[in-house]
Amino acid sequence: MSSAATRPAGQDDLWSVDEHLEDILSTVRPLEPIELQLLDAQGCVLVDDVTVPVSLPPFDNSSMDGYAVRVADIEGAGEEFPAVLEVVGDVAAGAADPVRVGPGQAARIMTGAPLPPGAEAVVPVEWTDGGLGEGPVSGMRARSSAPEGAEGHVHVYRPAEARAHVRAMGSDVRAGERALEAGTILGPPQLALLAAIGRGTVRVRPRPRVVVLSTGSELVQPGEQLATGQIYDSNSFSLTAAARDAGAIAYRVGAVADDAETLRSTIEDQLIRADLLVTTGGVSVGAYDVVKEALSSVGDEDVAGSGVDFRKLAMQPGKPQGFGSIGPDHTPLLALPGNPVSSYVSFELFVRPAIRALMGLTDLHRPRARAALKADEAIRSPKGRRQFLRGSYADGEVTPVGGTGSHLIAALALADALIVVPEDVESVEPGSEVEVVLLG
Amino acid sequence: MSSAATRPAGQDDLWSVDEHLEDILSTVRPLEPIELQLLDAQGCVLVDDVTVPVSLPPFDNSSMDGYAVRVADIEGAGEEFPAVLEVVGDVAAGAADPVRVGPGQAARIMTGAPLPPGAEAVVPVEWTDGGLGEGPVSGMRARSSAPEGAEGHVHVYRPAEARAHVRAMGSDVRAGERALEAGTILGPPQLALLAAIGRGTVRVRPRPRVVVLSTGSELVQPGEQLATGQIYDSNSFSLTAAARDAGAIAYRVGAVADDAETLRSTIEDQLIRADLLVTTGGVSVGAYDVVKEALSSVGDEDVAGSGVDFRKLAMQPGKPQGFGSIGPDHTPLLALPGNPVSSYVSFELFVRPAIRALMGLTDLHRPRARAALKADEAIRSPKGRRQFLRGSYADGEVTPVGGTGSHLIAALALADALIVVPEDVESVEPGSEVEVVLLG
Repeated sequence: MSSAATRPAGQDDLWSVDEHLEDILSTVRPLEPIELQLLDAQGCVLVDDVTVPVSLPPFDNSSMDGYAVRVADIEGAGEEFPAVLEVVGDVAAGAADPVRVGPGQAARIMTGAPLPPGAEAVVPVEWTDGGLGEGPVSGMRARSSAPEGAEGHVHVYRPAEARAHVRAMGSDVRAGERALEAGTILGPPQLALLAAIGRGTVRVRPRPRVVVLSTGSELVQPGEQLATGQIYDSNSFSLTAAARDAGAIAYRVGAVADDAETLRSTIEDQLIRADLLVTTGGVSVGAYDVVKEALSSVGDEDVAGSGVDFRKLAMQPGKPQGFGSIGPDHTPLLALPGNPVSSYVSFELFVRPAIRALMGLTDLHRPRARAALKADEAIRSPKGRRQFLRGSYADGEVTPVGGTGSHLIAALALADALIVVPEDVESVEPGSEVEVVLLG
Repeated sequence: MSSAATRPAGQDDLWSVDEHLEDILSTVRPLEPIELQLLDAQGCVLVDDVTVPVSLPPFDNSSMDGYAVRVADIEGAGEEFPAVLEVVGDVAAGAADPVRVGPGQAARIMTGAPLPPGAEAVVPVEWTDGGLGEGPVSGMRARSSAPEGAEGHVHVYRPAEARAHVRAMGSDVRAGERALEAGTILGPPQLALLAAIGRGTVRVRPRPRVVVLSTGSELVQPGEQLATGQIYDSNSFSLTAAARDAGAIAYRVGAVADDAETLRSTIEDQLIRADLLVTTGGVSVGAYDVVKEALSSVGDEDVAGSGVDFRKLAMQPGKPQGFGSIGPDHTPLLALPGNPVSSYVSFELFVRPAIRALMGLTDLHRPRARAALKADEAIRSPKGRRQFLRGSYADGEVTPVGGTGSHLIAALALADALIVVPEDVESVEPGSEVEVVLLG
């Protein structure tokens, strides 16, 4: 890891949370762009400005179901003295060669259909007798009950100005204008605009493929029987789900036993489908901490930026962490601690921003807020560590949930925020203002 | 439609936005529960309370890498006069039958490993010489470099109280307690807890399968060539994407020509994979409005709640709407107007809550806020209609984006809020407070 080598000198052996995050974000680069079908690009970041190739609407068209008319023919029309026009036919939406409207004539027209040549305005069908000769109507007769289309005469009971109920060509966007700016996140309305201007595919940064694996010989898959000394694997589920929530395509590999060779070959196997690897467990100071053992030695010493660096953070939970890159493509890897709360908090602080950086997003972090601590007693926090406590946030107040133990999954499931206690604070009194990370 | 029949009497022929929404929400029922694998249940609503079958942790275990000891043996230990203990072996995580620790003895223990019989506390490895006889160490030697495991003697430099660095059985949750309450939405931490208590599957309401189709003979697929009078289909893209954002599994059928028989057979074909059908276009008063024509006649008159009712809403955009149910399973169907802005606004107001109701969620609606109108001139709104204008919201202010035309897709792509102008308001001055729907 060149990043570890370039860390500012003169620090003690603990990395700060911010230094670790900066190391990750200065290393992880947005994925190469790819041309995707519109619906595959949902939630992705647009790479180039998109220009409008053809004006929208592409032609003058009717905004109402009604009759296309010449303005002079209906001037002064009223209920008592309606204008009576000869109906020359129908103009349906999609009509390629609409009938011409001459003086004294009208064409029955549908919403979205092109304004026919000769016509200057549209009068809604509700302003006419619909050709039935029995006063104002509320709609047209369905084509199935009158398949011959419109013919005969129509009575128009109100005048209209030129261009009334006509959507002008280019009134939405004009050819040559910028439809969307590079960097735009493609949600439903942006996809609508791309489709509307005829783009079937679009160039975006793809969703990163994230491979999640947990390590530990004590881990058993949920649904299986627990033997003495064993516990259920939960990290691979929560982090796979969290990676998806962050926007990734996530693959859960599950639990790998504490054997360096097995872990190494599993990771090598998974590299082919990984833009980012996340492991949990095996990063601390124990004799069986195989992630550390297996990955400290995979770096290609001749290649800058290759290899995984293990470090201690001034943070609770989440002190032991690994970060680096492995394999021929220098795939980034984050090695998180194994306790469920530690791994989840580490994911939120470090992996989620990394996933969003891979997507090319610029807004990488969860929103934060200031909140008043709602508690019966003060929060204690170890000096020199940034503590992240689980909390429940509402209306500017945050209530701690559960204790500080990093094995407390039940409390984690009730939390919607992390309470941040800075490194230099050892006690926070009830009612004090604290910073919270909103987990959304 | 029984719902249309039971509508309160004495109204004019326009439905209010709230009446239409209430009709939908009183008809749409949560989907039947299904047992799903944990990661397939992400974002879904839990149907039953989940009880903890086995306490967490299931056994006393170490929270540190270190040595499991008897408290009396290390009483008064210090740097100068360390306690010297015989090391009887390793206790790894997952160990089924850990070695016994007798008086004067210690077992090297890894984080998460069961506290061995006889031991009362754990001292972290950093408080010992790691068995190397050369003063305090910062970690254990990796097993690969010392495969024989721990043996010989260890010097312990600090005392510890009984239960120090031991996580007690049941300190997270106890067997018989409620882990999660029915109605909980399963995010990453909740899935972690389910996995941790051994649940491989969980009973939830599934994500609804939503089939989206647009109608109109003028519609061409993006990427194809436009002929005279044609436009690109955009609604099927935006609404499929919006349905996914709302939590659904969405299928985009694309555009169907304005032919009642084709539409009817397409819908009948799609029913098999639909929990909800959404159409756009063909619901107004035109002669070619085939959705209205095709679906007004599909209701089974003998079955309550079957059939699609078309109505006019006191709303802009989005006046013409259809709602009902079709097919042997009375699959709900929402027929939205065809203008891109009308269909999107209608989706947000009516389809999104319907999807969330199908999922069993209780929080159905987008958040709303009050905002000051930031504009150069007053907003005009037709009397008797609830108007939804596109806006851009930030810091308590909302700025209208684009005009009122329901064909303005470009402006829609810049909006992140809808400005609500109530039925009885015809003009809103700049600086006035308005209600906004936050599109998130």
